[in-house]
Amino acid sequence: MDHDMKIIIGSGLAGPLLAIYLSQRGYPVQLYEKRPDLRVENIPVGRSINLALSHRGIKAIKSADVFDKIDPLLIPMKGRMVHLSSGDIEFQPYSIHPYEHINSVSRGELNKILMTKAEASGKVQIYFDHSLLEIDGDTNELVFENGNRAPVTDHVFGADGAGSVIRNYIDEKVLSPSCVDPLGHDYKELHIAPGKNGEFQLDSSALHIWPRGEFMLIALPNTDKSFTCTLFLPAEGKRSFESLGTPELITEFFHTYFEDVQPLLENFPNTFFDNPTGKLATVYTDEWQYNNQYCLIGDAAHAVVPFFGQGMNASFEDCEVLMQCLDEAQGNWEGVCKKYSSVRKSDCDAIAKMAIENYVEMRDLVSRKEFKQQKEIANILMERFPDRFIPRYNMVSFTSIPYSEVYRRGAIQKEIISKLDLKKPDLTAAESMIKEKLSPLV
Amino acid sequence: MDHDMKIIIGSGLAGPLLAIYLSQRGYPVQLYEKRPDLRVENIPVGRSINLALSHRGIKAIKSADVFDKIDPLLIPMKGRMVHLSSGDIEFQPYSIHPYEHINSVSRGELNKILMTKAEASGKVQIYFDHSLLEIDGDTNELVFENGNRAPVTDHVFGADGAGSVIRNYIDEKVLSPSCVDPLGHDYKELHIAPGKNGEFQLDSSALHIWPRGEFMLIALPNTDKSFTCTLFLPAEGKRSFESLGTPELITEFFHTYFEDVQPLLENFPNTFFDNPTGKLATVYTDEWQYNNQYCLIGDAAHAVVPFFGQGMNASFEDCEVLMQCLDEAQGNWEGVCKKYSSVRKSDCDAIAKMAIENYVEMRDLVSRKEFKQQKEIANILMERFPDRFIPRYNMVSFTSIPYSEVYRRGAIQKEIISKLDLKKPDLTAAESMIKEKLSPLV
Repeated sequence: MDHDMKIIIGSGLAGPLLAIYLSQRGYPVQLYEKRPDLRVENIPVGRSINLALSHRGIKAIKSADVFDKIDPLLIPMKGRMVHLSSGDIEFQPYSIHPYEHINSVSRGELNKILMTKAEASGKVQIYFDHSLLEIDGDTNELVFENGNRAPVTDHVFGADGAGSVIRNYIDEKVLSPSCVDPLGHDYKELHIAPGKNGEFQLDSSALHIWPRGEFMLIALPNTDKSFTCTLFLPAEGKRSFESLGTPELITEFFHTYFEDVQPLLENFPNTFFDNPTGKLATVYTDEWQYNNQYCLIGDAAHAVVPFFGQGMNASFEDCEVLMQCLDEAQGNWEGVCKKYSSVRKSDCDAIAKMAIENYVEMRDLVSRKEFKQQKEIANILMERFPDRFIPRYNMVSFTSIPYSEVYRRGAIQKEIISKLDLKKPDLTAAESMIKEKLSPLV
Repeated sequence: MDHDMKIIIGSGLAGPLLAIYLSQRGYPVQLYEKRPDLRVENIPVGRSINLALSHRGIKAIKSADVFDKIDPLLIPMKGRMVHLSSGDIEFQPYSIHPYEHINSVSRGELNKILMTKAEASGKVQIYFDHSLLEIDGDTNELVFENGNRAPVTDHVFGADGAGSVIRNYIDEKVLSPSCVDPLGHDYKELHIAPGKNGEFQLDSSALHIWPRGEFMLIALPNTDKSFTCTLFLPAEGKRSFESLGTPELITEFFHTYFEDVQPLLENFPNTFFDNPTGKLATVYTDEWQYNNQYCLIGDAAHAVVPFFGQGMNASFEDCEVLMQCLDEAQGNWEGVCKKYSSVRKSDCDAIAKMAIENYVEMRDLVSRKEFKQQKEIANILMERFPDRFIPRYNMVSFTSIPYSEVYRRGAIQKEIISKLDLKKPDLTAAESMIKEKLSPLV
């Protein structure tokens, strides 16, 4: 078994986790990060300051033996708090099981803990302020914007995000390059400060949604008792970022659609214009690796839209799957990247598709009566047939069933529910369909 | 063997060719076209009024038994006429063989002949003014914008172009949807009328290029002695469509870069603002078919940028490959679409990539000394080792070698040439590399 130096580009989230995994297996790692060390300098950590951590991510973090450090940072969100246009508020739990919830977590804090854990192995060296410019194929070197160069002698893992330089390099080498599919909706982050009493201004045990059909606002709790709000809205058209170009227009827009939130927003509408408008897109990559040497993980391979809260969870799972491939090959790297790529692609295609579908669910369906009836039936079926029927959201968020299998089972479950009377479901008929079409889960 | 009704959406170019092929095999065909009949009404025929027809397209047209009607429309282009910034003009022949050339042909005339031939079979019915709106999955019907509906009982072939409705339908059904990758450069068509003597104002036996590094102008001859010119230019940036927003700016731009053409352009700069700015993109599609029933051909599956003149040729070759799959299965359609899709995808990925690469060749490399030296050596090697070494352009344009194999061999050939001294190539060394790395072509 060789223990050659592995190189990772990007110390965002998947990068340091992979570094930990590799160090556990005896490999020295060079980790190159374009930004300064956020544990030393107080810098913005990226596009989203909080994330939803669920089962897959927690499982991966536990494998890295660092969950005890992260657990105290988690804020459980037990369901969706739906703020209807009428002013009514409905709580829709994520699960019938009280122990199943997702967790709001600070991207920056999580990142710091993972980097520190990686360095503590004694095998991982992080080089900050090293932004990868290109790969010099003639000399076989990484070329950084600061002028430094590093020889490529072994594997290079691209954990360098949606705009990955490593992906661009692989794209040049392969026939079927990656492709970026814009969602057509953009986003803007806003902020709800803690109340005068120092407490949360909204219920902190839920993910808040203001569904408005074509657009929505959401809010996730932070440990400092604030909330991060995000407005998702078409980029162009009648009600869009393009059409809301002045403080008057945006104030009127919030007054019309989000009247209850508006008074809670900090420094509004100024923040709307101070904060950048973020773009949303899906990255589709056919070839996750080149030559069994260059290999992509996380957003670099499969950036997804954020509506299933699975971007980070999927990225962490990538690292686990890569290590499974390596462990199964007993440390013989030949073919590992290729195997990982072929296993993982269909699963990440599935979560990409489900994430897009979940936008419609969040911004529109959650406010509809039929959706709630279907959800109720799904919960009944889960309770009756727990080894075969688990609602799709729950398979994604609370199990490790491969995403492509989740997608397949989800389609069958949807069809079964569509055949039932929503008011008086025939559970005997449901049972025979379930037993015929859904194999038992182990 | 069933002879059920086949449905084709789009009578552009691939659509009627496929209809002919199907009718030859005994199938009745319904062909739905969104526009009126261009043989009756004088309407614009689409984004480009002339196209380059080469070996693959001619081969496919001959299989349709209609080449004798098309041959008289062809204007042979024997090479590139390169108009340098210095004012010098260089002719770069496409081949060392005088019988190898590409052909300028009118899209509209070609289209008319194919539609008439399809109808002459007595088995093909074309429905004009039928723009497909959607597929109604509940009733299994095609729904047209004019309100008509048509039941789907058998195969549906989407020949409905880059914005294919059939592709969108397949995308909904499959995990890995298609993706559109914009080139970032747009185009504008301009026109050079015949001269006062009624003759061509430029040499009609060449494809004219004015390579200017980041952008270029090209001109192709028409049978009415005019030329269609196309300007390809970045969409945004310093010298771009965005930056050339007034008649004064565009006039100055042409004066600076295309001084010799400017006096030949009809009604310039008005036409620049009257004609639409066209967008360029590559469509990447993983799944060319769904359920062995819905199947894509031509631009619907793989729209490519136009710089290799292969869009139409590749689309025609699609139809041939589909028929090969059917004939090999002796008319048993089960699995035919799937086979065709898996065979054809890597070839169309390859032509998509080569088409993007050829833009750089046309707009920049053709004016460079090193490029011409490399081309000269490639020609020497082709002459010496005709069974093994054919320059990439020639494999694409003058053979039926699958595009993916062309791409593979092209990369090897490029590497061989890179190892030779451009001024004094060692042909013995070249021979041993060629014999080692390039298998004989049959």
